[in-house]
Amino acid sequence: MGSEDKGLGFFKEIGLASNNIGSYINGQWKANGSSTTSLNPSNNQAIAQVTEPTLQDYEEGLNACNEAAKIWMTVPAPKRGEIVRQIGEALRAKLEPLGKLVSLEMGKILPEGIGEVQEIIDMCDYAVGLSRQLNGQIIPSERPDHMMLETWNPLGIVGVITAFNFPCAVLGWNACIALVCGNCVVWLELIFVFLFVPPVYLTLITLALNSKKLILIPDELAFDVGLMVQKIVNERFGKCLLELSGNNAIIVMDDADIKLAVRSILFAAVGTAGQRCTTCRRLFVHESIYKDVLDQLVEVYKQVKIGDPLEKGTLVGPLHTRSSVENFKNGISAIKSQACIMLHSSC
Amino acid sequence: MGSEDKGLGFFKEIGLASNNIGSYINGQWKANGSSTTSLNPSNNQAIAQVTEPTLQDYEEGLNACNEAAKIWMTVPAPKRGEIVRQIGEALRAKLEPLGKLVSLEMGKILPEGIGEVQEIIDMCDYAVGLSRQLNGQIIPSERPDHMMLETWNPLGIVGVITAFNFPCAVLGWNACIALVCGNCVVWLELIFVFLFVPPVYLTLITLALNSKKLILIPDELAFDVGLMVQKIVNERFGKCLLELSGNNAIIVMDDADIKLAVRSILFAAVGTAGQRCTTCRRLFVHESIYKDVLDQLVEVYKQVKIGDPLEKGTLVGPLHTRSSVENFKNGISAIKSQACIMLHSSC
Amino acid sequence: MGSEDKGLGFFKEIGLASNNIGSYINGQWKANGSSTTSLNPSNNQAIAQVTEPTLQDYEEGLNACNEAAKIWMTVPAPKRGEIVRQIGEALRAKLEPLGKLVSLEMGKILPEGIGEVQEIIDMCDYAVGLSRQLNGQIIPSERPDHMMLETWNPLGIVGVITAFNFPCAVLGWNACIALVCGNCVVWLELIFVFLFVPPVYLTLITLALNSKKLILIPDELAFDVGLMVQKIVNERFGKCLLELSGNNAIIVMDDADIKLAVRSILFAAVGTAGQRCTTCRRLFVHESIYKDVLDQLVEVYKQVKIGDPLEKGTLVGPLHTRSSVENFKNGISAIKSQACIMLHSSC
Amino acid sequence: MGSEDKGLGFFKEIGLASNNIGSYINGQWKANGSSTTSLNPSNNQAIAQVTEPTLQDYEEGLNACNEAAKIWMTVPAPKRGEIVRQIGEALRAKLEPLGKLVSLEMGKILPEGIGEVQEIIDMCDYAVGLSRQLNGQIIPSERPDHMMLETWNPLGIVGVITAFNFPCAVLGWNACIALVCGNCVVWLELIFVFLFVPPVYLTLITLALNSKKLILIPDELAFDVGLMVQKIVNERFGKCLLELSGNNAIIVMDDADIKLAVRSILFAAVGTAGQRCTTCRRLFVHESIYKDVLDQLVEVYKQVKIGDPLEKGTLVGPLHTRSSVENFKNGISAIKSQACIMLHSSC
Repeated sequence: MGSEDKGLGFFKEIGLASNNIGSYINGQWKANGSSTTSLNPSNNQAIAQVTEPTLQDYEEGLNACNEAAKIWMTVPAPKRGEIVRQIGEALRAKLEPLGKLVSLEMGKILPEGIGEVQEIIDMCDYAVGLSRQLNGQIIPSERPDHMMLETWNPLGIVGVITAFNFPCAVLGWNACIALVCGNCVVWLELIFVFLFVPPVYLTLITLALNSKKLILIPDELAFDVGLMVQKIVNERFGKCLLELSGNNAIIVMDDADIKLAVRSILFAAVGTAGQRCTTCRRLFVHESIYKDVLDQLVEVYKQVKIGDPLEKGTLVGPLHTRSSVENFKNGISAIKSQACIMLHSSC
Repeated sequence: MGSEDKGLGFFKEIGLASNNIGSYINGQWKANGSSTTSLNPSNNQAIAQVTEPTLQDYEEGLNACNEAAKIWMTVPAPKRGEIVRQIGEALRAKLEPLGKLVSLEMGKILPEGIGEVQEIIDMCDYAVGLSRQLNGQIIPSERPDHMMLETWNPLGIVGVITAFNFPCAVLGWNACIALVCGNCVVWLELIFVFLFVPPVYLTLITLALNSKKLILIPDELAFDVGLMVQKIVNERFGKCLLELSGNNAIIVMDDADIKLAVRSILFAAVGTAGQRCTTCRRLFVHESIYKDVLDQLVEVYKQVKIGDPLEKGTLVGPLHTRSSVENFKNGISAIKSQACIMLHSSC
Repeated sequence: MGSEDKGLGFFKEIGLASNNIGSYINGQWKANGSSTTSLNPSNNQAIAQVTEPTLQDYEEGLNACNEAAKIWMTVPAPKRGEIVRQIGEALRAKLEPLGKLVSLEMGKILPEGIGEVQEIIDMCDYAVGLSRQLNGQIIPSERPDHMMLETWNPLGIVGVITAFNFPCAVLGWNACIALVCGNCVVWLELIFVFLFVPPVYLTLITLALNSKKLILIPDELAFDVGLMVQKIVNERFGKCLLELSGNNAIIVMDDADIKLAVRSILFAAVGTAGQRCTTCRRLFVHESIYKDVLDQLVEVYKQVKIGDPLEKGTLVGPLHTRSSVENFKNGISAIKSQACIMLHSSC
Repeated sequence: MGSEDKGLGFFKEIGLASNNIGSYINGQWKANGSSTTSLNPSNNQAIAQVTEPTLQDYEEGLNACNEAAKIWMTVPAPKRGEIVRQIGEALRAKLEPLGKLVSLEMGKILPEGIGEVQEIIDMCDYAVGLSRQLNGQIIPSERPDHMMLETWNPLGIVGVITAFNFPCAVLGWNACIALVCGNCVVWLELIFVFLFVPPVYLTLITLALNSKKLILIPDELAFDVGLMVQKIVNERFGKCLLELSGNNAIIVMDDADIKLAVRSILFAAVGTAGQRCTTCRRLFVHESIYKDVLDQLVEVYKQVKIGDPLEKGTLVGPLHTRSSVENFKNGISAIKSQACIMLHSSC
């Protein structure tokens, strides 16, 4: 069955086919590893095949990036901004099919898939402005007729490891700023790749790394993986910027506007099927309004449409992997066995 | 009768006597004009005599300041900060007698007189920190291997004209920043002088100026005078920073905490006997709570102690001049004749 | 003779014809005044006709702008940035014909005409970035549990008066920043108009104004006009940002790299036919190298191609008006009669 | 023999005696460990005794600091600045005896000992200014009528580990900023203590720590220790600011001003007996001027006065420990055996 039969007509628009190359190295799509299948989490059917890079491909990519870095850091910052602007324009032209691809692979509903691509576009626009503001400083000295000059130098290569749930936005936050600052970017992502024609100073590897060998990182281990990556990077006094999930609570006091609270809880807990770091995971409700809040929550939960994230009206799509589903079920069982949590807000 | 008999024992501490010289020119107290008497607004008795400068003294002061400016702007900013720090220390050592003098001459209550001197001290501390932050910028250029340098240069002389109601704080806001930025300061004030040993790069003139001759500015004309000063300065593309009184209102809605509102209105309207730019001059009260607010206001007004600002417990001191008293009385008459304003909040 | 016969084929691309409306008011091209002819300064032939607005049109424009301002200032800053981005895109699509029009009307050579339009595009890109950085401040207070909030509010309407020599760039510097900051813009320009489809919150008037009536400002009076505008604006405590020509000198010392100096002098003095504020108007040459510099300058001046600014290879186009030509000739005569200036650098 | 006989008359001024308590915990000088002797590195004679804290003392200090942190972070930033100002004033009053103590213990010459104390005073002044500038931001949002607020929160406790060579300045750089930002400070230092009356929110421990037990860190291991400290801190996602010595070179090209170069090399290599991170450790000299530079260097080295750092005219004091002397001798031997480095600049 062809990709069009499966509703994948938009594949052509963004240069995808039923077989794809999973890494972009030294200005070329290139991968010599084994083939893997990207699954649609809402029906577990294959979307397409991706050929993964080998360790050798990865080394070649890093070496090429290293060479490109020497040139890129000499390009004047406003000229770097101009190239980032063009990346933004290219993404803007393909906003919808790219958003669709994010929804298809990750399982989030279409408006959120498109919203994620919009975030990377917004970051491009923002970074263009920054490219004329990377100012150093001239600092007055105590010594007569002396002053101190401080300027910002590029770091070289910035590596971006993105997670399954925001494959697109997280790249944008980091890569756009890194690029105008004069750094090359190596993007290591954990799922299927959506980029179509990246520029030469952006290397793309579809698997995660540590310093010794390529490994696949299970989705549940973000925190541990972050700690591990930081350890390796810090050993050479490098720097990390870590985003490692969250554990947010909402507190509802007795003088709260309950309707507003219930709507906020619903959005915070249910959005992206709870697969975002800002998801509400815990709820503290004052006992005097506990029953009222609970009743209203049950009511609004009933109205949430669950299903195919690309279908109109769907509010909750699938969890991303089978293991996530198992984890979720186990969590529910554990909570039920600690019954007081559900029954008494005061326990 | 000696100054000590009049409770002026603190005069000695700050270098004042019954006869004083009103201007500090080229590092010396010096004035050749006529003698004027500084009056205590709470009893209209003489505090002390001040000899005013002549136009010639003024010109000499400006010329000396001009010469000093050439040296001062070459002193490294952190060293300028060190001198401003020493000014702050000198003021700190005389905080109470200086605060007393402000109260005595201006008529504000003692805690506010002392508070004003504290403001100039705080400004000194703040400006010391700034003296290491007057940073220029190194801006990336579009041209390869080029950058743009931007640094801040002193203006030369900054003139500060202070008003009767904040003789001390307004000098501090402007002079401290001007000095660390490398400018000399000419201070033109409209009442009796409190400074004791100013440094050589601070020239002091007790009267206001326009470009042609020295004139006395009536207190009521702040707005017109500001416009006039601005006009003269702008003609040579110079810059002004104008603070020209205010006309503030408080709006009390029907869901207000009336007790809190009444206390705020009292403080805003009565503090410094209404002689500050942030004074509340108008009150808009919702008709449903109008009577309640009015009753409570009348009550709290009754408890305000009016009298000698140096006496403990006094909350309201005198208006500063006879003409201010006349203006105030006329204002009350006019309001009474427009009776609806007092009787109906809705008119 | 049609516009195409005169090489005006690009007119269509930017929505111009042989008769044009000179003002854009309340979202429409509209003008009820008399017709004026825009002349090509390189041959004094008519380019096209422009109908000027009347005083009534102008008032209508300002009123409409005032209404638009109330809406525009409530649009979130990043959304304002998005609209400025679209303006930049529209200009980018017409970069070449717009640059041609600037050259045709103003007389500057084509690369500079195009460069000017590029400046407004760059300003758009820069302002888009700024639209997410118009940050207020949260300032720590001395009072426990208090803080001060400072936010930036739009001014309302920003008027931009541009001069003949940079009709395009000066608008860009001011309008792009004003727009993302939430202000509407009234553009008053002194020559023919190049904009094609401006948005509704941009009002366009082809003549300059004072508070009472529309007047034409002679090109030579920038300084006096600036002073006059400032006076009127300051009377209501408004603010001006004035750019009022310059009087720059180059100093060549005896250890200078003469070749580099001569090239720099040529570029600084001859570029844009001297019609820019950064033009070199005076030259101070050390006597020991005076003759050498002069000889080389005469030599390079001979090689400068003067002529039609749209013709390839032309380095110097026409002065913009007949009166400029007269002024220039008179200047040369005056200098010749003060012969020592030309002959001895030491006099 | 009393302290005065050993030239330690200034001890009294700063509250020191022949026996001292080595840690300041919960507002009190307190230590229950064994006694250690602080040696003068220029003659290896005892300066005084210090009683070290036990692990229990250390825990008590940290607990007290933790309690103090809860209060300190609620003090308004400008009030915190006022206390830092008072610390600066207290240090200023004891500038000379404190500088003498630094020289005596560390071995650096007196002007540098005093200079170091001046640095902490300057940092206090600077931090006072900063205490009114710890501004958060109000960021425009894309959503109408919404904005984002960003404020800075204290971290809690900031630990400062200082090294033997700058016991005083490094504390100042970190503690002054940390304090105005609302953090308490634990100071762990590796040599004898100079502070006299520290405030309660400053805990002082004379030994270094890791998470399990107190250990003594040999001077030579800065780099390794830094890595270790960072590892422990990062495990809980804490942050380090590391300064871990340096390895600076001076390059002298053939067109250099040799006199200036020689003077700079002398100062950079010899100052503080090479015991500073900015010391020049390597010299690259162009072969064409190699001999000239070498001859002049030998000449100026001969004129350097080596000896007691408190004696007038001394330029080089002792190395700080016996092991440093051994290391230095071994280094010289190693270099001599790699003879080409000394003889040919090109090898």
